Amino acid sequence: MENQQQNMTGSWQLNCPVSIPAETDCVTLAHGEGGRLSRKLIQERIISALKNEFLETADDAARLPRLEGPLALTTDSFVVSPLFFPGGDIGSLAIYGTVNDLAVNGARPLWLTLSLILEEGFPLVVLDRVLLSLAEAARSTAVKIVAGDTKVVPRGAADGLFINTAGAGELIEPVPPGPAFLKEGDELVVSGPIGQHGMAVLAAREQLQFDPLPQSDCGSLLNSVTQLRERIGDRICCLRDATRGGVAAVLQEWAESSGLTLSIDERAIPVTSGVRGMSELLGLDPLHIANEGTMLIAVREGAGQEAVSVLQSLSETADARVIGSVKTRGLVPVTVKRTLGPEQPLHDPLGSPLPRIC
Amino acid sequence: MENQQQNMTGSWQLNCPVSIPAETDCVTLAHGEGGRLSRKLIQERIISALKNEFLETADDAARLPRLEGPLALTTDSFVVSPLFFPGGDIGSLAIYGTVNDLAVNGARPLWLTLSLILEEGFPLVVLDRVLLSLAEAARSTAVKIVAGDTKVVPRGAADGLFINTAGAGELIEPVPPGPAFLKEGDELVVSGPIGQHGMAVLAAREQLQFDPLPQSDCGSLLNSVTQLRERIGDRICCLRDATRGGVAAVLQEWAESSGLTLSIDERAIPVTSGVRGMSELLGLDPLHIANEGTMLIAVREGAGQEAVSVLQSLSETADARVIGSVKTRGLVPVTVKRTLGPEQPLHDPLGSPLPRIC
Repeated sequence: MENQQQNMTGSWQLNCPVSIPAETDCVTLAHGEGGRLSRKLIQERIISALKNEFLETADDAARLPRLEGPLALTTDSFVVSPLFFPGGDIGSLAIYGTVNDLAVNGARPLWLTLSLILEEGFPLVVLDRVLLSLAEAARSTAVKIVAGDTKVVPRGAADGLFINTAGAGELIEPVPPGPAFLKEGDELVVSGPIGQHGMAVLAAREQLQFDPLPQSDCGSLLNSVTQLRERIGDRICCLRDATRGGVAAVLQEWAESSGLTLSIDERAIPVTSGVRGMSELLGLDPLHIANEGTMLIAVREGAGQEAVSVLQSLSETADARVIGSVKTRGLVPVTVKRTLGPEQPLHDPLGSPLPRIC
Repeated sequence: MENQQQNMTGSWQLNCPVSIPAETDCVTLAHGEGGRLSRKLIQERIISALKNEFLETADDAARLPRLEGPLALTTDSFVVSPLFFPGGDIGSLAIYGTVNDLAVNGARPLWLTLSLILEEGFPLVVLDRVLLSLAEAARSTAVKIVAGDTKVVPRGAADGLFINTAGAGELIEPVPPGPAFLKEGDELVVSGPIGQHGMAVLAAREQLQFDPLPQSDCGSLLNSVTQLRERIGDRICCLRDATRGGVAAVLQEWAESSGLTLSIDERAIPVTSGVRGMSELLGLDPLHIANEGTMLIAVREGAGQEAVSVLQSLSETADARVIGSVKTRGLVPVTVKRTLGPEQPLHDPLGSPLPRIC
């Protein structure tokens, strides 16, 4: 009875785009134990959804070609709740998150590994839906899932589904030097409206009724990073997708790495009306809210407007703006000129107000 | 009160080698949210435990050197319960599991990513203990952890700690061709006593009092694979660490890949007295029980005894044996000549009897 109740409140129930029949096939412990059911789950659901030449052999490690350039590696686990939210789901998030980490670090994303932790009782139709979304995101970014792992834990030992993706890519020269090389005068650019992902997940989780309802920006930054690097590659100092902790966390980290002060102007920062409305009502600052397809870019002095022009020519980053610049180290690492009022320190919170947004 | 109770039965309490003070610092949701506490946890506990040149930059993706040979990639999530068991813990398991996957697939393990999913309330002293073990296992196998991720989920949404490691290595020629290339007459070798890991975890979880208590074989296969490949490299057809589903699952997969019948002789298979005693009492077959440092090797006809000699010269594989051979396809994919009685089909269970052993 308790298990039943737990299922009914499972995060996959909220916003799940497939209807789950009363008598539905569910994940069992045996699906995770290396026997016939494990092989069946992997072959018939996972590999068939993600089909590519590397998964055919079904060995425990993928044998891949030799790379011309240096290697980049990254990893991310996804524990978002609910699993489906306006603008995305845990499947697309797991691909775009890792693809974006590679792209903003100067690499061409190539191969991903996929590891699932499933809770006993998780409906297989929901898993199929997540795999479909994951496969579509992989196709759209031209990455291949080349190795995987599936574990099942008993009811109550996990919340439905957690996904890990690790990604390998090839570093493409010139690799942006990184935040330790920021200089006074460098300009700060944001690629689009901020705070959409965190607000969309929060609204979905708490079933808040806002109009307009915030949509997640969950998406790939690969194309916009590629275009930017082709056009102004040698004038990019660093890029970062502003995920957990939002734009504020990226600014804090960059200030720490560089020993300089980063100053932004709130009036220049694009925020959708949905995010603004929710922020004001809930007392949250969009600067601290997570994004999943929006990045911060630092470019050399004078290149900010050119970066914005490149980004604005692309539909996914049409709202890009110069939002600030790098200064000599002042009293505080990050400052923000608020819409109403003077320049203030940008608060560096212990944590952000939103758990489980990715 | 319910949360309290849950904590008291948390798997980290069982066999935990560190005492947990009543007033202990625990993981909070804020540790996972990208703000100051996240950075502190990562810098002061994780990076300081795993220290290496690649982790210094703390970017979201590691920038690594160019590889001479082709790349191998693998991933594994670890959800073992309890976290500590005789012979190992989730930390050493997460390193050896991924190192072994690379090694048996013909690669030199080089770089690992590390992703932690932590439950709110997990004691930081226990995390430190796991990281210590993880760092020691990485050192002993000369792999470096180059990128990471840390997520925190609310109490009850995970069971203490889950770990994902993904691994990258360089394929070393001649890469063993794999089970699709098995031939009639090939000989099957096991590198040591079977079933130790699964039995050790089961005994720890259920607090069974056996004498002798089974010890996990949790350990690296890197050295033994390297020695074997140096000595008889061109006569190795395939290798596989016999993890979930045990030796039986590897045999089933190889029979499926090759379309041949694999036959083993139970009397030749090394089993410790501890595993034998527990198996008989619980009605389990050691062939179905997981190993975490024991592999199956298929070598060309006539090379079995030479493989065994190489392995027996190493302390970690001193009990290696030829246990069977590959035959034309008979009525069943895998047969076993039992100690008492005639040759029988080796049952391919839907799942193994032991959840959460890795």
